[in-house]
Amino acid sequence: MSVGQVDVSAILERGRSLTTPVLREAIGRLAPPMDIVGSYHFGWTDAEGNPATGAAGKGLRPAMALLSAQVPGADPKAGVPGAVAVELVHNFSLLHDDLMDEDEQRHHRATVWKVHGPEQAILVGDAMFALANEVLVESGGPEALRAIRRLTRATRALIDGQAQDLSFEKRDRVSVEECLAMEGNKTSALLACSASIGAVLGGAPDEHADALERYGWHLGLAFQAVDDLLGIWGDTAVTGKPSWGDLRQRKKSLPVVAALAAGGPASDRLARLLATPADGEETEEQLAERARLIEDAGGRAWTQEEAERRHRAALTALDDVPMDAEVRNAFVALAEFVVVRKK
Amino acid sequence: MSVGQVDVSAILERGRSLTTPVLREAIGRLAPPMDIVGSYHFGWTDAEGNPATGAAGKGLRPAMALLSAQVPGADPKAGVPGAVAVELVHNFSLLHDDLMDEDEQRHHRATVWKVHGPEQAILVGDAMFALANEVLVESGGPEALRAIRRLTRATRALIDGQAQDLSFEKRDRVSVEECLAMEGNKTSALLACSASIGAVLGGAPDEHADALERYGWHLGLAFQAVDDLLGIWGDTAVTGKPSWGDLRQRKKSLPVVAALAAGGPASDRLARLLATPADGEETEEQLAERARLIEDAGGRAWTQEEAERRHRAALTALDDVPMDAEVRNAFVALAEFVVVRKK
Repeated sequence: MSVGQVDVSAILERGRSLTTPVLREAIGRLAPPMDIVGSYHFGWTDAEGNPATGAAGKGLRPAMALLSAQVPGADPKAGVPGAVAVELVHNFSLLHDDLMDEDEQRHHRATVWKVHGPEQAILVGDAMFALANEVLVESGGPEALRAIRRLTRATRALIDGQAQDLSFEKRDRVSVEECLAMEGNKTSALLACSASIGAVLGGAPDEHADALERYGWHLGLAFQAVDDLLGIWGDTAVTGKPSWGDLRQRKKSLPVVAALAAGGPASDRLARLLATPADGEETEEQLAERARLIEDAGGRAWTQEEAERRHRAALTALDDVPMDAEVRNAFVALAEFVVVRKK
Repeated sequence: MSVGQVDVSAILERGRSLTTPVLREAIGRLAPPMDIVGSYHFGWTDAEGNPATGAAGKGLRPAMALLSAQVPGADPKAGVPGAVAVELVHNFSLLHDDLMDEDEQRHHRATVWKVHGPEQAILVGDAMFALANEVLVESGGPEALRAIRRLTRATRALIDGQAQDLSFEKRDRVSVEECLAMEGNKTSALLACSASIGAVLGGAPDEHADALERYGWHLGLAFQAVDDLLGIWGDTAVTGKPSWGDLRQRKKSLPVVAALAAGGPASDRLARLLATPADGEETEEQLAERARLIEDAGGRAWTQEEAERRHRAALTALDDVPMDAEVRNAFVALAEFVVVRKK
């Protein structure tokens, strides 16, 4: 896949291929059976422990971490400990969130708690979190403490975001601002860290790392807005997620929250429908009606515009950092990739 | 309580009183309701959120962290970030372990997952782990990275130990060596970190910190041996734990494992009894017989001797570190306190 003159697939592939061996070595350090469970989670083995061909995500975070090392002119490899640490924190949060949210599938595979039990999901998540710090400590450079500082801040935000997300489920109404704050914590914080941690390890000053964090923060919100759109209107065959998934769960995602805040007949009818507790499984017709009301109230268009606004803000943040044109073009292409994706 | 010329209660009290305000401030940073849940866990509030008088543990870890800062001649307060970080990691592991082990009570109070649900136990545990790093990063001194390195190593060991402990439950036999390795990870690693992290923050060389870790490591094994004895023969009214608790759970603790390894008639009979799966709740007579067999096979005496051996090894490790006589006497008294305790 290319965006403009940039081969985005190659950038993502470089991130995965430089990061995966270090990640596998780190997971291999865990006491049994955590090593096996970790390996299953990453898709390197199947539920029986046989080698598998991986079913990992897009690899956006490691790609960004390596790219950011090039900002101060370092070798992309200088970003590898940061890429591995960010991936470990991301996957620690997936293991725990899937258990808390009782999600049974991820990337078309049964989640760890379903296959290996809740204890292993908790424990291996904890171990990945600890390994993330271990990898940064071992990177040994003079910048390790600065990288740990940023990763710690992002991890705290990630956990705050999950707490907010869980608390929203128990509430009737959530404002657009609260939803954006939650999504910022849950999605943007770690993407912001990914986009800056390589730069820190490569010796960039904090001022440049902060600007790269702003790029990642806005991009995270764009990413999440697109995710929220796909969660309602995405093509199930492409996303691998159940159709109307977010509606079925009555998730207070951006399009819903924006539609409820908009006012008017469609917004009011949507609010009335959501005020009635679901009586068992809802029908396709009920879900389709809710999707239509969200669209009629302007929730879909607002979220699409929000993604575009955040996309532009991400690009503007890049203006504050000197870097080679090739590196800048790659950051621009990754941002484009995030906003136009179909899954 | 005094040991020799040293007032152990005062040392423990100093640790608690200097650490608790910083700990409370850190927990207060968490997004709601995690702040409330954390506060409940530490016993600062009851299940309804009303102020309570705390039901914390002995405070051995913070006391040691502060004392260890005095080894290189620093003010005990230099150890506070280390004490807080160690307490946060310890309590993160309690929150997750109580959930994994389905323990409903701790210090005579309902555990967090029973009161606030499994999600909050997972999430607040995660948050405490992240806060531990945050507090050390914020301590800002030149030694923060060295302290994080040691805390990370201890945390990884702690998680490995819990994985080993869980895996032992599914096995028929565990060797004495495996049991000691598990207890070393689960108990000694963090005590070793507690006894050295203040010294690191206070500027001690790694060689001295390593010797203090050895003191803490052996003391942790002595602590655990005593714990295992109390888990079978402790006075319920004093320990606050159910009578025959460890026997009822068929825990492969040191006295049991040592008794099974000893051979002879009592050992063989114990092995036969344990080979039969428990058919519902076991009677007091059945548990009492098992306790007697463990004692007859020498498991109780061996564990008592192990506690004494480890106690001596801890004191020997102190010989390798120069420090004021007052500080040395306090370390010696804390070790004595650990081995003679009744709860």
